[in-house]
Amino acid sequence: MKNALGIELPEFIDGYGEVVPFQGERKNPTLKPKTQVKESVVLPGDNKVLNSIDEALNKIELKDGITISFHHHLRNGDYILNMVMEKIVARGIKDITIAASSIFPVHEPLVKYIRDGIVTGIIASYISGPVAESISNGELKKPAIMQTHGGRGRAIESGDIKIDVAFVAAPTVDTYGNINGVSGNAACGALGYAVADCQYADTVIAITDNLVPYPACPIEIDQTYIDYIVNVECIGNPAGIVSGTTQITKDPIGLKIAKMASKVMKVSGLVKDGMSFQTGAGGISLAVAKELENIMITEGIKGSFASGGITGYIVEMLEQGLFQGLMDVQCFDLKAVESYRKNLTHQGMSASMYGNPHNKGAVVNNLDIVILGATEIDTDFNVNVTTGSDGVIMGGSGGHSDTAAGAKLTVIVSNLIKARLPVIKDRVTTATTPGESIDVLVTERGIAINPRRVDLLEKLKETNLPVMTIDELKELAENMTGKPRKIECEDKVVAVVEYRDGTVIDLVKKVK
Amino acid sequence: MKNALGIELPEFIDGYGEVVPFQGERKNPTLKPKTQVKESVVLPGDNKVLNSIDEALNKIELKDGITISFHHHLRNGDYILNMVMEKIVARGIKDITIAASSIFPVHEPLVKYIRDGIVTGIIASYISGPVAESISNGELKKPAIMQTHGGRGRAIESGDIKIDVAFVAAPTVDTYGNINGVSGNAACGALGYAVADCQYADTVIAITDNLVPYPACPIEIDQTYIDYIVNVECIGNPAGIVSGTTQITKDPIGLKIAKMASKVMKVSGLVKDGMSFQTGAGGISLAVAKELENIMITEGIKGSFASGGITGYIVEMLEQGLFQGLMDVQCFDLKAVESYRKNLTHQGMSASMYGNPHNKGAVVNNLDIVILGATEIDTDFNVNVTTGSDGVIMGGSGGHSDTAAGAKLTVIVSNLIKARLPVIKDRVTTATTPGESIDVLVTERGIAINPRRVDLLEKLKETNLPVMTIDELKELAENMTGKPRKIECEDKVVAVVEYRDGTVIDLVKKVK
Repeated sequence: MKNALGIELPEFIDGYGEVVPFQGERKNPTLKPKTQVKESVVLPGDNKVLNSIDEALNKIELKDGITISFHHHLRNGDYILNMVMEKIVARGIKDITIAASSIFPVHEPLVKYIRDGIVTGIIASYISGPVAESISNGELKKPAIMQTHGGRGRAIESGDIKIDVAFVAAPTVDTYGNINGVSGNAACGALGYAVADCQYADTVIAITDNLVPYPACPIEIDQTYIDYIVNVECIGNPAGIVSGTTQITKDPIGLKIAKMASKVMKVSGLVKDGMSFQTGAGGISLAVAKELENIMITEGIKGSFASGGITGYIVEMLEQGLFQGLMDVQCFDLKAVESYRKNLTHQGMSASMYGNPHNKGAVVNNLDIVILGATEIDTDFNVNVTTGSDGVIMGGSGGHSDTAAGAKLTVIVSNLIKARLPVIKDRVTTATTPGESIDVLVTERGIAINPRRVDLLEKLKETNLPVMTIDELKELAENMTGKPRKIECEDKVVAVVEYRDGTVIDLVKKVK
Repeated sequence: MKNALGIELPEFIDGYGEVVPFQGERKNPTLKPKTQVKESVVLPGDNKVLNSIDEALNKIELKDGITISFHHHLRNGDYILNMVMEKIVARGIKDITIAASSIFPVHEPLVKYIRDGIVTGIIASYISGPVAESISNGELKKPAIMQTHGGRGRAIESGDIKIDVAFVAAPTVDTYGNINGVSGNAACGALGYAVADCQYADTVIAITDNLVPYPACPIEIDQTYIDYIVNVECIGNPAGIVSGTTQITKDPIGLKIAKMASKVMKVSGLVKDGMSFQTGAGGISLAVAKELENIMITEGIKGSFASGGITGYIVEMLEQGLFQGLMDVQCFDLKAVESYRKNLTHQGMSASMYGNPHNKGAVVNNLDIVILGATEIDTDFNVNVTTGSDGVIMGGSGGHSDTAAGAKLTVIVSNLIKARLPVIKDRVTTATTPGESIDVLVTERGIAINPRRVDLLEKLKETNLPVMTIDELKELAENMTGKPRKIECEDKVVAVVEYRDGTVIDLVKKVK
């Protein structure tokens, strides 16, 4: 069978199960009730604080085939996943599925467990580094499942992912399990990706290096979700957790793209009072934020909110009154953490509130403009942020598909040529976000508008911006680089790429 | 069959169902998973704001036998329940169950609906005024179900109460459903009793008189739980919502009781660094808080937290650094609302987090001392706060049983004689909180210690406090008032009193 992007899919994939093909951004064929959650009784006087991870593992029924979860707010500074896995593996447990919101290079020790058949499943929204390469090499027994941030929230809430034990990296936790990310050595700010894990896992173990007296205020994740608390020496390396500062690109081409993107935003008519905005932490994305800031100040525009992973640049916009509030699932730098700690209008949100298509309206639904990147984009505007042009996994949707689906204007900013390859392909190596969600591609050489957006095309034609078709833009690039050769893959499915609603938008095959 | 208090119960009650008898404070025989929740899809561009309650009712499947819920943060100033009921009744809907966290005199219009057989069921944690009298007179078709605050959270989460539509009084709400209680004409502070309703109802309708642009920060109840928003002229009368100020008793007997209670607390050894405390908003309860404040200041004691409905007196203790944080389910006065708005350590909590025995540990579990009232207490220390000595419903547990079960020291403060009747009975008219949860009764004439608390009795014997047995204290009272006559009831069960775990602790019969 084929999905809505015309991608051929089997009806069943070993190690994954039945395939529901992607049917379109707003079709949601998989809607079902939220799953039941195990209830517990913790009596007055019961003690939740344990002395070691081993003591916590003694409390739970560890068995082969278990699914354990982690969240990625400590990013490439995370010590928790490796620490826990070492202890679990030492107990001889096999056939483990890791449901981590993201996996980073620091999690390299997983590769050995994958090769040894100890870790057989991985579910994540973003995977980079050695684990991604191992998966692409076909070393993981079951296909990895790549989700979106909102899709992961949905999957946990619906029971598509059944978490046996969630391990929560807690920068600060009190003796009864109230967690926040605003204090402690590993302070990382908002903890949005851990919320569903805590709400739905059978057992939740908070691991901290900052155990404080009850009650730890402000509470981000509360005591009613936490079974046990373990205090360890150190949960993460601050250098890898948040950037000291995030930086606007200094590359003139990047700055040019940002300027062009800001003009497109302006022309769209969405830059006005009450506007909402999201951009990433990359150099070009931040440069777009800076351009927007200038426009808003010059024109006296007061926005509604900015969302997403939050950076210091966005905080500055809040503090200047350019936005009424920030909706934050994850802080990208120290300034964002500090703002989240002190600004009442800097609001935390769960991944589900951020982007789950199956609740009563996620934050992305209210986005006017989102600025996103792309590894590849094809002439149908489908975007790949999952694999490199060599077919190897190097990322994943994160919030890409969620925000693109929600925003009124989704702008992809990219150099036209990256690492000597055109960013525009006939067909993306892997479809992460469907073309119907993408409105504009802005490159330094030209701007392509999705033909669905006739309205926007009309508006842009009245400007002197270099608007062309995406095919023209592709040709422009190929004239410089030559036509890139098609990568070759084997038949083995190494990863299933789920759209935010849980349907399958693409498959990643083993690289040759 | 008999429950653990020796109260005879039928195995089945018409209009209620199977009876699980109360088996003891910590037995929890009814533990089960949290129920499934209906999922929805709200697409970008969908509008949640409707023009009237009628328009909202048009969106839902109103049918006979429906269960609708309300929360009581607007207390006796609430306009919502009557407003909604008028519209629903106008549509000819019958056999309605009202699941309101509490019902106040202002809800008198319900009496007519009860008599007309339109409202046939009531589930609440506290009922006072005409509705309570109507129930006691046997006018409601099904027995009312009286729960605790934590028990209501548990019942909604477990599916024991299935809410079809929740109507949420929203002092402030934005256009996508983010609610807070800190702003607006009806600002009432924490919204803890509405949380489970929003999380578990099939449909949630927020009714406000302060609709604000998105996003309303701080968010107490978020957009992912709200289906529709209706803006009306006025949701409540501020005079009935929160007291301008709550007042310490000026009655010398009350002050004497408070002083004695504070001495008991001191002797217990629990008044020390890290202590936690809860008291009510009544005059004697506040006087106890004032006594505690003096002790803490004099002795340089820094407490952990105070919880419950929060008053300005408790806020003053927070702001003096006597507590590290406040855990607040409901603000009782304007000073508490103001503090909840501005103090980061003044933390909101849901009713479930407050007192649900079936989560991973409620706040009450960490209470050291709670000060509570009693309409009656019997020689087994069982307490009645549900019915008057005439057998008529005039209240309910609220958080009484929850806090009493959790706290290390539960102190009942009461005048020995109230309205010419001794507060101590051979047997309470209605058992609300079991004697095993009660440690001490403090009256102006003497202090009785629950014989289970041998440790406390030993400590108090070393003081000059007037300690006696509860039988001696009862005799003292009866010597003054004479032996009160026993009230007579008919066989008809008008209310089932559920303990916090959902077992049946007592029945209220129709008064003769």
